[in-house]
Amino acid sequence: MLGAIEAGGTKFVCAIGTEDGKLIKRLEFPTEIPEKTIPRVIEFFRAHQISALGIGSFGPLDLNKSSDTFGYITSTPKPGWVNFPFVETMIEALNVPVAFDTDVNAAVWGEFLFGARKGLASCLYITVGTGIGAGAVVDGKLLHGLSHPEMGHIHLRRHPEDQFAGFCPYHTDCLEGLAAGPALEKRWGTKGTGLSEDHPAWGMEAYYLAQALMQYILILSPEKIIMGGGVMKQAHLFPRIHQKVEQLSSGFLSLPAMKSYIVPPMLENDSGIMGALMMAKEIYDGKKCKK
Amino acid sequence: MLGAIEAGGTKFVCAIGTEDGKLIKRLEFPTEIPEKTIPRVIEFFRAHQISALGIGSFGPLDLNKSSDTFGYITSTPKPGWVNFPFVETMIEALNVPVAFDTDVNAAVWGEFLFGARKGLASCLYITVGTGIGAGAVVDGKLLHGLSHPEMGHIHLRRHPEDQFAGFCPYHTDCLEGLAAGPALEKRWGTKGTGLSEDHPAWGMEAYYLAQALMQYILILSPEKIIMGGGVMKQAHLFPRIHQKVEQLSSGFLSLPAMKSYIVPPMLENDSGIMGALMMAKEIYDGKKCKK
Repeated sequence: MLGAIEAGGTKFVCAIGTEDGKLIKRLEFPTEIPEKTIPRVIEFFRAHQISALGIGSFGPLDLNKSSDTFGYITSTPKPGWVNFPFVETMIEALNVPVAFDTDVNAAVWGEFLFGARKGLASCLYITVGTGIGAGAVVDGKLLHGLSHPEMGHIHLRRHPEDQFAGFCPYHTDCLEGLAAGPALEKRWGTKGTGLSEDHPAWGMEAYYLAQALMQYILILSPEKIIMGGGVMKQAHLFPRIHQKVEQLSSGFLSLPAMKSYIVPPMLENDSGIMGALMMAKEIYDGKKCKK
Repeated sequence: MLGAIEAGGTKFVCAIGTEDGKLIKRLEFPTEIPEKTIPRVIEFFRAHQISALGIGSFGPLDLNKSSDTFGYITSTPKPGWVNFPFVETMIEALNVPVAFDTDVNAAVWGEFLFGARKGLASCLYITVGTGIGAGAVVDGKLLHGLSHPEMGHIHLRRHPEDQFAGFCPYHTDCLEGLAAGPALEKRWGTKGTGLSEDHPAWGMEAYYLAQALMQYILILSPEKIIMGGGVMKQAHLFPRIHQKVEQLSSGFLSLPAMKSYIVPPMLENDSGIMGALMMAKEIYDGKKCKK
């Protein structure tokens, strides 16, 4: 049995599953301060015999194995979680190997392994929800470098009719500051779910998201783009984004047919937890091989 | 002996070298129409016994091995080179295996293998000259996806004092349209080499280049950034770009010391030709193994 955590800014998902990707048990609860949330996590996994744990977490994270704060959540605005030693805490409590990466890297990994991988070596997953983040698979492996990417914080050209200042605490009007769920709510005075399909909010939202996808395409050239998160539950956003990406790439890039290129998650709400489960499998297999 | 070509928009470099990266002979000539340039290339290599050839070429290129036009230069604005079957032509003339990639991928490969690689697994090379392009190494391999990246064509926020429309034939005011050599010349009425170090041109140039580097950093997280090309011969641009990237990342990303993070090429003018030579070595080694 393997354990998996999808640690999101609003909720935690804990799951037990098998090496071939069957989820056996699953529990969700809201993300509160670590002193409340972490004991529930530990209790869940202590009730099962797991051999390894995979964590996909909201960030930013320290993923540098030679750093003193490896395995920490670092500079999050989320109260109580700054400098939380996630990996250390779980190893101490459960005494199993722990794999650790961003929530979006876990999600792109789940989508790649169970969906996009057929015939492809690369893909990108972007979540548009309370925040915006993206992870990528390049040549069959999760993209890392100096650290993990922070693709939600790129700067874009502003829509000419957009008067909203932006709400990102770091950059004000980066992609996240202009197009995450809270931007919709603050700009239009009501949540996205309360805006009709013909509301001008959606044209502006597609304008920003298509612009961001074009930057990712020009820089990473992914073979598939998966768009998840609460805001993307508005299915009518897909054709709007398809049309704008086509406009932006026209005459310059030859991209696959939009309907199969920019798609919703195959695993629906399980991309992240399935990716985390497979991360657990990989760290477990790695330790076995070393023996 | 191995052969290498760096096919640039303004000049061709042809070279003969050894497997361990020693250049034995080197010839440069201007890029004219293929009917004039290619016979000179073939003549050069026919005079030497080469076992394989590596080509780093201006693009866009078709790098999809299952495509009918694999190995072609595709939609370039350069007269005579549209749909030029570069790989096919060289194989027919020389009867050796040919490795083919973009000029900037060859350059980042040369820099990675002979310089940046020490202790690193990733890096990015950007050239700022008659055009702007970039290539990247991710996890020790050249970054490819659907195709090769086109990082020179990302959109940026315009400098508030910039009245110049931009000159990119595809996007008008993308990065290349605003910050390549011809943009400097058209905006200020004189070539970059004719502008003094305290001319406002350079602050604006650094503004655009730093913004582009931030997009690359947020999306790819490279461990090192190498800046080459004619415009970057203006060494005073480096401290300007360092300062702006520091400003843009401050309080959000922790980057290495700028002086060692954003640097000029270690191989000076040989990054591309050395990368192409190593591409020739790799395709030759690959064919040997298959026998």
